[in-house]
Amino acid sequence: MLGLFIVILASCCTASADVSCGYHSCNLGEAEKLNVHLVPHTHDDVGWLKTVDQYYYGSNSSIVIAGVQYILDSVIPQLLSDPSKRFIYVEIAFFSRWWEEQNDAMKENVKQLVQEGRLEFILGGWCMNDEASTHYNAIIDQMTHGLRYLNDTFGACARPRVAWQIDPFGHSREQASLFAQMGFDGLFFGRLDYEDKENREKIRNMEEIWRGSQSLTSPHADLFTGVDENGYNPPDGFCFDAFCRDQPIMDNPALEDYNVEEKVDKFVAAALKQANHFQTNHIMMTMGSDFEYSNSNVWYKNLDKLIKYVNAADKNMTLFYSTPSCYLYALNHANVMWNIKKDDFFPYADAPHQYWTGYFTSRPGLKGYVRESNKYLQVMCQSHKNLQPLQVYSYDGQLSFTWIRDAMGVAQHHDAVSGTSKQHVANDYAKRLYEGFDACSVSSREECNKVISTALTGNNEQLIFCDYLNITLCDLTQSSNQFVVMVYNPLARGVSKYLRIPVKINFYLIILNKFAQQLVPVSEATLSVRRNRGSANCELVFLAKLPALGHNTFQVTKHKTSKTVSLLKTKVEKVINQDVTITNEFYKVKFDGNTGLMASIENIASGITVPVKQDMLWYNASMGNDENINSHTGAYIFRPNVSTPFQCSNGKPQLSIFKGSNLLVQEVYQKFSDWVWQVIRLYAGKKQIEVEWTVGPIPVQDKWGKEIISRYETNLETNGYFYTDSNGREILERRKDYRPTWHLNQSESVAGNYYPVNSRIYIHDNQVQLTVLNDRSQGGSSLSTGQLELMIHRRLLGEDSKGVGEALNETGQFGDGLISRGKHWLLLDTVTSSAKQHRLLAEEIYMSPLVAFQHHAPSTTHIGWKQRRYNYFFESHVTSPLPPNIHLLTLSTTTDGGYIVRVEHQFEKNEDSTLSKPATVSLKNLLTDFHVSSCEELLLGGNAFKQDVTRLNW
Amino acid sequence: MLGLFIVILASCCTASADVSCGYHSCNLGEAEKLNVHLVPHTHDDVGWLKTVDQYYYGSNSSIVIAGVQYILDSVIPQLLSDPSKRFIYVEIAFFSRWWEEQNDAMKENVKQLVQEGRLEFILGGWCMNDEASTHYNAIIDQMTHGLRYLNDTFGACARPRVAWQIDPFGHSREQASLFAQMGFDGLFFGRLDYEDKENREKIRNMEEIWRGSQSLTSPHADLFTGVDENGYNPPDGFCFDAFCRDQPIMDNPALEDYNVEEKVDKFVAAALKQANHFQTNHIMMTMGSDFEYSNSNVWYKNLDKLIKYVNAADKNMTLFYSTPSCYLYALNHANVMWNIKKDDFFPYADAPHQYWTGYFTSRPGLKGYVRESNKYLQVMCQSHKNLQPLQVYSYDGQLSFTWIRDAMGVAQHHDAVSGTSKQHVANDYAKRLYEGFDACSVSSREECNKVISTALTGNNEQLIFCDYLNITLCDLTQSSNQFVVMVYNPLARGVSKYLRIPVKINFYLIILNKFAQQLVPVSEATLSVRRNRGSANCELVFLAKLPALGHNTFQVTKHKTSKTVSLLKTKVEKVINQDVTITNEFYKVKFDGNTGLMASIENIASGITVPVKQDMLWYNASMGNDENINSHTGAYIFRPNVSTPFQCSNGKPQLSIFKGSNLLVQEVYQKFSDWVWQVIRLYAGKKQIEVEWTVGPIPVQDKWGKEIISRYETNLETNGYFYTDSNGREILERRKDYRPTWHLNQSESVAGNYYPVNSRIYIHDNQVQLTVLNDRSQGGSSLSTGQLELMIHRRLLGEDSKGVGEALNETGQFGDGLISRGKHWLLLDTVTSSAKQHRLLAEEIYMSPLVAFQHHAPSTTHIGWKQRRYNYFFESHVTSPLPPNIHLLTLSTTTDGGYIVRVEHQFEKNEDSTLSKPATVSLKNLLTDFHVSSCEELLLGGNAFKQDVTRLNW
Repeated sequence: MLGLFIVILASCCTASADVSCGYHSCNLGEAEKLNVHLVPHTHDDVGWLKTVDQYYYGSNSSIVIAGVQYILDSVIPQLLSDPSKRFIYVEIAFFSRWWEEQNDAMKENVKQLVQEGRLEFILGGWCMNDEASTHYNAIIDQMTHGLRYLNDTFGACARPRVAWQIDPFGHSREQASLFAQMGFDGLFFGRLDYEDKENREKIRNMEEIWRGSQSLTSPHADLFTGVDENGYNPPDGFCFDAFCRDQPIMDNPALEDYNVEEKVDKFVAAALKQANHFQTNHIMMTMGSDFEYSNSNVWYKNLDKLIKYVNAADKNMTLFYSTPSCYLYALNHANVMWNIKKDDFFPYADAPHQYWTGYFTSRPGLKGYVRESNKYLQVMCQSHKNLQPLQVYSYDGQLSFTWIRDAMGVAQHHDAVSGTSKQHVANDYAKRLYEGFDACSVSSREECNKVISTALTGNNEQLIFCDYLNITLCDLTQSSNQFVVMVYNPLARGVSKYLRIPVKINFYLIILNKFAQQLVPVSEATLSVRRNRGSANCELVFLAKLPALGHNTFQVTKHKTSKTVSLLKTKVEKVINQDVTITNEFYKVKFDGNTGLMASIENIASGITVPVKQDMLWYNASMGNDENINSHTGAYIFRPNVSTPFQCSNGKPQLSIFKGSNLLVQEVYQKFSDWVWQVIRLYAGKKQIEVEWTVGPIPVQDKWGKEIISRYETNLETNGYFYTDSNGREILERRKDYRPTWHLNQSESVAGNYYPVNSRIYIHDNQVQLTVLNDRSQGGSSLSTGQLELMIHRRLLGEDSKGVGEALNETGQFGDGLISRGKHWLLLDTVTSSAKQHRLLAEEIYMSPLVAFQHHAPSTTHIGWKQRRYNYFFESHVTSPLPPNIHLLTLSTTTDGGYIVRVEHQFEKNEDSTLSKPATVSLKNLLTDFHVSSCEELLLGGNAFKQDVTRLNW
Repeated sequence: MLGLFIVILASCCTASADVSCGYHSCNLGEAEKLNVHLVPHTHDDVGWLKTVDQYYYGSNSSIVIAGVQYILDSVIPQLLSDPSKRFIYVEIAFFSRWWEEQNDAMKENVKQLVQEGRLEFILGGWCMNDEASTHYNAIIDQMTHGLRYLNDTFGACARPRVAWQIDPFGHSREQASLFAQMGFDGLFFGRLDYEDKENREKIRNMEEIWRGSQSLTSPHADLFTGVDENGYNPPDGFCFDAFCRDQPIMDNPALEDYNVEEKVDKFVAAALKQANHFQTNHIMMTMGSDFEYSNSNVWYKNLDKLIKYVNAADKNMTLFYSTPSCYLYALNHANVMWNIKKDDFFPYADAPHQYWTGYFTSRPGLKGYVRESNKYLQVMCQSHKNLQPLQVYSYDGQLSFTWIRDAMGVAQHHDAVSGTSKQHVANDYAKRLYEGFDACSVSSREECNKVISTALTGNNEQLIFCDYLNITLCDLTQSSNQFVVMVYNPLARGVSKYLRIPVKINFYLIILNKFAQQLVPVSEATLSVRRNRGSANCELVFLAKLPALGHNTFQVTKHKTSKTVSLLKTKVEKVINQDVTITNEFYKVKFDGNTGLMASIENIASGITVPVKQDMLWYNASMGNDENINSHTGAYIFRPNVSTPFQCSNGKPQLSIFKGSNLLVQEVYQKFSDWVWQVIRLYAGKKQIEVEWTVGPIPVQDKWGKEIISRYETNLETNGYFYTDSNGREILERRKDYRPTWHLNQSESVAGNYYPVNSRIYIHDNQVQLTVLNDRSQGGSSLSTGQLELMIHRRLLGEDSKGVGEALNETGQFGDGLISRGKHWLLLDTVTSSAKQHRLLAEEIYMSPLVAFQHHAPSTTHIGWKQRRYNYFFESHVTSPLPPNIHLLTLSTTTDGGYIVRVEHQFEKNEDSTLSKPATVSLKNLLTDFHVSSCEELLLGGNAFKQDVTRLNW
């Protein structure tokens, strides 16, 4: 069954005999009183309205005044001056910058504070990641990046005990599972559906045990989970930040406005109200908010007074500075039987009509780029296996490969990949990822690519990356008569992949000796999207077979010839009012000439044929109405003005078809409009239907913001049920207009049924399952029986008043609207045989091969290289491929010369009769050329030996 | 000639052998470089947008976030952590609050910082007082209050060397003179006419010696005076406050937006530009602004970087933390011959059409109340002479009488008495003054008034103050058949004053045995203003003769009689189209029946008759125009939309006349409209014409803000010259459309010729002088030959964009507009005999007797009381009255049992042939019942022995 474990090949964690030192300093209050844990905290977005650097420095203040450097500057002296004070810090992306600027004396002071629990790291990720549009691989990486930084810097006592997801807009079950496996004792968050919260308050169920996995045995993925009473803010009237406007406590009777009694009474009322929602005589109050504590004296001075006067007021209540860990520890002592939760916290609405389901799709370009970047990061980490002496990557922030890890860490932030930042910040995220690609950017990009090339291929010939392959643009391949394609497969099993290389053919023939090949003319959509850039008029298509955790290279040579026609003899043909069908050995896909739409899919082997109508539609974005003028659609919120979407085609899409001469690929082209195209492909030997959508520039001259969906309608009797993945891993059952744990009053029949789709969504009846996989996170739903839809792009003119302060109106490079292109893959098969297909396909999508180019073939003298005619094949880095149910999730080195390897079973319990069974893998001989001298299991975050950690028992 | 000196009767100042310790810590820079003195400072308004208490605490943040407590909290640790850092603090009204809240350890730390010059007190007044609407008596008091607090708290080294008037809107010469006499070595300020500043920059005359007095010999009133380059702000782009939006210095090359070179270059350019305006190789930069440094780390961290990078950049420039004193000290070493200035810095314009001359009159009610309150303060101080054991007043903030001194100190602030605060803050100033009257407010007001009564009269019968005597309202006198009037004269010479006591007569006769008395019916204007409050229908008028520094009491008894008519036989008579004249032994004032206006004044003894037309007019307030849409009239700015004012009367005023039966007073009543009235009075034996104006509610239904003036037109050939006082003391010559030190481009023919009139304004030709004295500060001018005008009230609908953010639209108690009533006094005489009249009269106005009431006559058994039939007379507190040219300015005790006495010669050099001569007064026997054991001369501020202080020599 599905499970994660990780392995360390050399010691890198600070072992501590005293594993519970984090709880030692806790004040557990007084048994007979209401104990109010005041938690001073700051919530520091790793980019949102400003970039992460701007937030760190406090620059670009015309947008907002916020400077993280000053927060840490300010808090430390406050803690040093008073042992009773506490502070928690969360985002290591910020903390690490600050730490590097401190002198030794300050560092010693901070270490002392950490040791004594006065400064406590909570969560400890590089950022506080989004939970709706992140992939579990990236979550694990960003958490590891932060957690190991803390461990390396402060040792075991700094290990966060509590996960702290106070701001993300909904919470995934997989996140809880990961946290549990990282050794966290609990999780607190702030945002959940308003009805859910009201109900929980009523039934005192604000805190419970979340069962994070349906595959792992309890308590491995169980996590104590609490809802913060006030989001992550203080109770009304008690914000004492320097930028808050609540009245301070004015306790000099000689001055005007003396208000001690008033403040005490108001606080006591708030505490009693809160206590009424919770089960124990402990409550936690989050005393802070966004970027607060830059002048922490203002907070602490007033909190000191609050504590003094409330405690003196004989209200059977005791206030003290505390931390979430200490609060959790107090709860752990409370001897309460907690409720068990098995579903998740999606979707999130903070009020009727205000469903935060738009961000599941916001900024499809950025979401796609984050996925692409993960692949690069994983390849970097793997490549370093061969690069021991260069030490180009480490977890520890000192070497240049850390740029891509930092960038990916930052990109998982809940306003980054979520698509909810301001445009200039989104640009900055993308720039960081780009510069992360340029991984050795301390030197030149060229030098860097040589390093990577050496690592991957043993060949120091510079690698050339073509960033626009998806629109058939590549300077090298379209202009050069000879080049080499280098393809690296980061999976620990062999895969094959159809490559599509931009080439310009005139009187030249493309030769890939010994390989079946096909030239496909550049489509009308691509030409339109390319906007006169590039000269490639064809894509050279061929199937690259790739070894497990290794690469292959392919030399392409153009020869002068008159036989161009023969390769291109099958051209794209327009289809007028006529049904067409494409097929390979697995599927037949039929299009209706009358509608221009997909009409049916036949799975040849299974003998299943299902009528499948697929259309491209758009919802018109609400700009508010009388009932709620603020219920705009925006970067966060999805709220269609009417529930029925409009067709993107004006009438019907125009159909064309391409069937290659040698049947490597058959393609149907649909032009829905000048801004919506689709290509449906069947590749020889591939048991999946590829659907490439191209959307944009979305027109807005009609003043309607638009949200584009791809909708599939079938005759499957699904009765409102559908299935979506959780962060690309386990699958959750969804049901229209229904929540498993409370009675839903549905205020939005469309938006209120949207769920995050990170990797796949499917529907099925008793027999047949239609699965759609995607290449980036999107929102998706099934709004009527047999139907399934994914939102793929959105362009809005209004703003949803959730803080970002600008419309999600991506205008793109040319100013007229961002064009986005992506893919869906369709599987139609029996329910029982679907899992093994979508599990492996999703993995191949997520960790698809890295494609790069070189001018020249590598010299044959390199060790490990073997020349096979025109092809250069490098041995795999694994001694033998892993079985299909085992995934080599990550492989990377540590600064002290060790390795961290994460291997996971990637099938859920019972989802496949064979592959869900336990599997065994030998680590000892997993990697070639390496001898394992010792091996220890770590927590998932890589920051502690598993044997050193005992989680709290609930 | 005019001069000030002060005397101490018992030691109270910290003597210091090392009188120059304030300069010891100064960094004087490098001789060959441009030395840039960076002066971290905060400018903390003692009330403006928020009240002084709100600013201290940081409450009422919906208006603005600003909390002084946090500023001092924040700066001290910064100074402690780095000996190179400096900070200056100014407003003792704030500092003293903060100080009282600190523990001993913090106090010791602060003392150390002060001793080492790292924390330096600058100015050191209770506030940074306004210079246009303040009286010199109040300035001296508020400065003394702060300076002595510093001396008592920190000793001699804390004595401020530099006066710091960075924000007041124009600068008076008297203020410079007072500063010089307080021992200050220099003055810096920020605001001066924009043309004046441009010119000074051009000719490098930003710093000079200001000769503060035309009577005192140099250098007694000479003061080095410098103009701040940037007001009191940092150069553009270098505001590093937590609330500023300039870019911080970003010096980590690994992060985006690294800007060190950019910042260095921009700063160097700013410094070189500034240096070009100044004479030496030292310049001072004010690194701070309003309420800044609440999170001083933000400032200091970036300044540290600025200093580091500029100094490292080899720009022939050295930056260091400094203070205005150290900068001044460096200038003093520079061996420069400085220019001498003899005029003042009024009026102030910051741009064409933007004359800050409206505030000379803004809030006439508050301005009047501040004057009234000063009298009360002085009486309190004097009364304490008799109250040694009760210790009700001290300078040192511990005893209850300090309330009135605090309130008066706060009220002198440049947004308080100036009338430029928000309305709620103006209300707070007035409330403080009111509570100051209630001087022992720690106990009941009744108890307190007994204390005061005991002090003033030796009689512990409670005093009753009637706050609305000016509108003939007093519960006691109008309803009681017997009461006692207690009148205290705070001048050290005997005076007589006509009292007007509200009474209700029906069948009763009012008896004041042995005194000439007259009943004057309550005027129509007063009845209108009273709005049905009160029942008094007459004022009982009689002349109270008062001893020097002493009181008199008068028992009033009503007897039943039928002779009412005899006392009221002269009634008010309406006058229709008929000339009328009122007269006493000194003046005849004639009114023209055709115009309803004053027509001429005859000085009987001098044989001078001058046609004098007086009218009440209003300017319509500009709401901006095409040339400058922001040039609104407002609380600060006076800008009439057209230069010719409109008449308040619709046609002509309605005249009435009252001539009393026994000729104590003759009165002419003018009703200009429902909202403008005037009474012109001549009292028997009084050589002055009293003009009582009543204005309001000013109507604004026509959408015009209105500024009401009283204008006098005569035939005197004055050719544009006129004369106004400076803070109620020396007189300055003014000239229409002219400035003595630069060529004026007049953009506002009215507002640009307005000057502050604190006590008097006059015009004269070779022979004859018309002097108008007022009872509160007003703006005044002479806009054409022989003409003179004073602005007495203003109500505005627009805002002048100078920060206050609301229109000066005082709606008053009844919501329809504030009614204001006040007085002018006219003198018409030869030029040579005018000074002796206006000097003494102004003094009698400013320190007019305190009138209070008691239910019962005092018992005759009190020591010192003598019963003289119905009158109770107490001996004067001076052994003999002072000569008329000597003024007992202040008399008060110190906590250690000493006394501070200020005596001044109150005539200018040569303004009177006799009284301008030096005068001698014996302090030894000045006060009754006290023996002078020792006596030492202090600085004017009372904070150092004069012999201990040597001012810098220029």
